[in-house]
Amino acid sequence: MIIEAIKDRIETELLVFMDELDREHFLSKTSPFLFRIIREFTLRKGKRIRPILFLPGYLGFADRAAENLYHCALSIELLHNFTLVHDDIIDKSLFQRGKPSMYAYLTEYLKKRRRIKFNVKDMAPASGDVMYALALSAFLTINECWDRKEKAFKRLIRSAVSTGSGEFMEILCGTTGLERMKKTEICKIYELKTADYTFAIPLVTGAILAGADEKETGRLLRFGKNAGIAFQIKDDLLDILDAERVGRRDPFIEVQEAN
Amino acid sequence: MIIEAIKDRIETELLVFMDELDREHFLSKTSPFLFRIIREFTLRKGKRIRPILFLPGYLGFADRAAENLYHCALSIELLHNFTLVHDDIIDKSLFQRGKPSMYAYLTEYLKKRRRIKFNVKDMAPASGDVMYALALSAFLTINECWDRKEKAFKRLIRSAVSTGSGEFMEILCGTTGLERMKKTEICKIYELKTADYTFAIPLVTGAILAGADEKETGRLLRFGKNAGIAFQIKDDLLDILDAERVGRRDPFIEVQEAN
Repeated sequence: MIIEAIKDRIETELLVFMDELDREHFLSKTSPFLFRIIREFTLRKGKRIRPILFLPGYLGFADRAAENLYHCALSIELLHNFTLVHDDIIDKSLFQRGKPSMYAYLTEYLKKRRRIKFNVKDMAPASGDVMYALALSAFLTINECWDRKEKAFKRLIRSAVSTGSGEFMEILCGTTGLERMKKTEICKIYELKTADYTFAIPLVTGAILAGADEKETGRLLRFGKNAGIAFQIKDDLLDILDAERVGRRDPFIEVQEAN
Repeated sequence: MIIEAIKDRIETELLVFMDELDREHFLSKTSPFLFRIIREFTLRKGKRIRPILFLPGYLGFADRAAENLYHCALSIELLHNFTLVHDDIIDKSLFQRGKPSMYAYLTEYLKKRRRIKFNVKDMAPASGDVMYALALSAFLTINECWDRKEKAFKRLIRSAVSTGSGEFMEILCGTTGLERMKKTEICKIYELKTADYTFAIPLVTGAILAGADEKETGRLLRFGKNAGIAFQIKDDLLDILDAERVGRRDPFIEVQEAN
């Protein structure tokens, strides 16, 4: 029930949030097409695991909800969307959250244009970069004291470095072959690429912003990393099972469930 | 002479800076290959326009140099390097700063691998994303008061949004054809993509960090944007002239001059 109430509030705030980002960065003025697709992409239905984890991370240690708490929570969702855009380019995924992926969307857009000098792999990073910057800017809107904001923000950035490194490591491993990979390497990729920013970071940054101490955030970090690795193992197993049952499920539903 | 002294100091600090980034983010441990290429790429000779402009922007309004002032200046250089990596992917440029571009480097790396599931356009965004995150984290290392840091950082992020939007707009224009473009559109792309983050932002963020008021930073912003547009016009003219003189110049030298 509490999770459902948080999720409803997140969906409502997401609408307000997108309008505020637009006002702050003049996006619909300078880049109407780009803003339209980012907005549509962001407002798609999703599980919202990251903002949902961020909120108890914060509220578990705070006396009251700070101003713009939900915007701060949503910034992590936006950061996730940015990684989805970059991942879909890498995997050439056509669907994301039950609708065409940004990769598919831009491919379609380019098909209709007569002069195609660039391809979709050129356009999508730029749209992802804008989402990345918007997310980071939104994280700082929370009205909390500066030392906590700095500490939480640095942790968020460190996690962005980990995610990028994990993504890079995964691609490198793809060039040597799965059967040669060690279990520890796979776990390291899970930890860097998924566990840190999906589970650990929402909990830990929320707690840091609310003033939790090192011991408390250390516990949340360990819990988040382990829960994240477990999540990713299950997610990969489901992918394998789904691949074996090809044709029996609707790809739109599969995609919705995976994120 | 002053500019030369600043540039020498920048080069010295860049070495220290890369080691500190490594210690902070454990990069050579978790991603040795990625860190090695980012380090090599960052330490290549360059004009260093952005950190050079940042320093007088700061020192013109400050009583003294804050701790980690140079690290903060270098973060803008790193941010620039990140855009070079993404641009080289889009343009399929083989050279950058007189050496193989990250695009060329990774293409070569993949050629030597037997199982190639991914291509270089998949790998390069991840390396760019890591550089982006490292740059933002470094900007916050300066020891200045928090309200100034927040204000300067938000301006830096807004500029990152502009740069991404400008890049996206340029790609869109490429699909409709140059002869159909309006002069105002070209100037808007120049402003968003180059002028803001190359000239205006180093000056303005430096000044904000040192405590300059709105009026003073407003002047620097206008100067920076106009100087940046002029720079880009000249840069494009040189590109056209160079294209007409193909074969007469060494591509390594051309690339060094362009950045």
